Amino acid sequence: MKLSSKNLHERLETVYDAIVVGGGMGGLSAAIYLARYGLKCLVIEKGKGRSLWMQDLRNYVGLDPHTPGRDILNHGTKTSLDWGADHLRGYVEEVTDEGETFAVKVKVGKQNSIYPVFRSKYVIAASGIIDNLPQLEDMQNVYDYAGYTLHVCMICDGYDMWDQKAVLIANTEGQIGAAFVLNWFTPYISVLTHGLCTVSDKTKQKLAEHGYPLYEAPIAKFLGENHQLSGVELTDGTIVEATTGLVGMGSVYHNQYLKGIEGLEWDGQNLVTNDMCKTSHDRIFALGDLKKGLNQVSIAVADGTLAATQIWRNIRRASPPRKWEENIKVATV
Amino acid sequence: MKLSSKNLHERLETVYDAIVVGGGMGGLSAAIYLARYGLKCLVIEKGKGRSLWMQDLRNYVGLDPHTPGRDILNHGTKTSLDWGADHLRGYVEEVTDEGETFAVKVKVGKQNSIYPVFRSKYVIAASGIIDNLPQLEDMQNVYDYAGYTLHVCMICDGYDMWDQKAVLIANTEGQIGAAFVLNWFTPYISVLTHGLCTVSDKTKQKLAEHGYPLYEAPIAKFLGENHQLSGVELTDGTIVEATTGLVGMGSVYHNQYLKGIEGLEWDGQNLVTNDMCKTSHDRIFALGDLKKGLNQVSIAVADGTLAATQIWRNIRRASPPRKWEENIKVATV
Repeated sequence: MKLSSKNLHERLETVYDAIVVGGGMGGLSAAIYLARYGLKCLVIEKGKGRSLWMQDLRNYVGLDPHTPGRDILNHGTKTSLDWGADHLRGYVEEVTDEGETFAVKVKVGKQNSIYPVFRSKYVIAASGIIDNLPQLEDMQNVYDYAGYTLHVCMICDGYDMWDQKAVLIANTEGQIGAAFVLNWFTPYISVLTHGLCTVSDKTKQKLAEHGYPLYEAPIAKFLGENHQLSGVELTDGTIVEATTGLVGMGSVYHNQYLKGIEGLEWDGQNLVTNDMCKTSHDRIFALGDLKKGLNQVSIAVADGTLAATQIWRNIRRASPPRKWEENIKVATV
Repeated sequence: MKLSSKNLHERLETVYDAIVVGGGMGGLSAAIYLARYGLKCLVIEKGKGRSLWMQDLRNYVGLDPHTPGRDILNHGTKTSLDWGADHLRGYVEEVTDEGETFAVKVKVGKQNSIYPVFRSKYVIAASGIIDNLPQLEDMQNVYDYAGYTLHVCMICDGYDMWDQKAVLIANTEGQIGAAFVLNWFTPYISVLTHGLCTVSDKTKQKLAEHGYPLYEAPIAKFLGENHQLSGVELTDGTIVEATTGLVGMGSVYHNQYLKGIEGLEWDGQNLVTNDMCKTSHDRIFALGDLKKGLNQVSIAVADGTLAATQIWRNIRRASPPRKWEENIKVATV
């Protein structure tokens, strides 16, 4: 059932088997599996997630390589609703471990917000990350290219940069190192720091040895038309030619709501999980980009399968077996 | 490129980066990733794999729940060919480790067969399993229901058996134990052994306590119409009412071609792999149903992602870096 401020009171007494924080690829997969295991689940999606920005999902078996992320999200949301999952548009502010259950506090509505609290036995953290983009005065200029010819994931889109002139936009010296992986796909790399970091002589020398020019002035604007990059203009007037680019500026992790939970094991901002996506907390699972590993749609979808299956196993094993009562009566007559 | 007996000689001198044995969901995912990493790969598919028999894939994000396996296989094969993978219809007879490369001997053609040998740096074992089905004189009678209302995977299809009268067809005492998991979905379970095993008093008692009747006579035929089961007739004339069923008779593993490789770690018939689907052999990876873990499409697809990515990393790290030569000259003038 689709929940909103109008009907969510119908679910405030429900103890869900699982609340899934995030309705991206991993969260939707978990919801589909949970619902098909006959478990009660609620997906809480804040909107504007990483896969919504994806213009083409090119490497996922079964879908055409020009399928946009938003289509898959809409389709998966509808499918999981059809199987019986609940969905709510809202922002999870806090998760509190109450022992047997979690209390999940959600902000619903941007204006005149309300703050309902839902309860569940398990929490699946599927809220992902969002890539940092260069901040320009005119952000629309960035959005015109990001996700089209200005990429954020080399594994996803390296192929589409093959032997093109490319900019690598890096905000730390560590991120500049991506040039020496990106060169598998193209050696025509210009590195832009957008004025965000200083670069050591050692790195400068390594870039020079590879023939990769370094530009340290801030970006003024991206050039091109119809989402096709043709170059980057810097604030010092320099124009760097490029038909593609990779933004390597790190990510924001949507994991604040878990920061009050004791005993969760982190590796930087990533949650450490076992082979069934269970975190170090027995009733919290983590999927996709939030956990350690590759940030790929296929991985998130499999993670949803694993987490939902382990939760089903736990709940099933703790439940009394269903007997065919009528036959038992016959047998004991 | 699609290979056949007519053109495969063009590839006999090629050293592929990877040969993928099996063009099911995992193998196709690996091929799509490998091709998009710019690596040379060959998928060898014998045909008639497990996912070809799947009438509806109900739990995979992005696809309608009535999508048949054969559509996904056709689509994924075409997609991977478009990205640059090679495909060959054939049966892998033997894989020999030559040190730097593998020699992969393939039987091509059912009649007037030829036995070409292809070479690759890596092998991805994605040849899966096939479920054992009850052997009746009229196998068409089994195929009329298998994959429709007679299921082989509880995780995939338990939901679709909800509270229905179900037969569990088990060929060992261990497989009879599936009744006590299936009862999550329905308690109306009749257990059929098809005359294939003896059942201990302990198991008989446990079944009786749950009210699940046990029938030990062989199956004569499945009853129903339009793929919808209505019951099972046994050779002793008994008719067991059931609108659905689960076959739990184990599987045949397509892994014979690996049995000559030394040092591979097995867990029964499953290959043991690490978190990137690498086996205990550094240049052999295993995906999906062949490795330990859940037998689900989503898992196989993610496995293909992982194996291809690790192979790319290995090959990339061993390759000289591509430099922007023109700039280096300018710098040193």
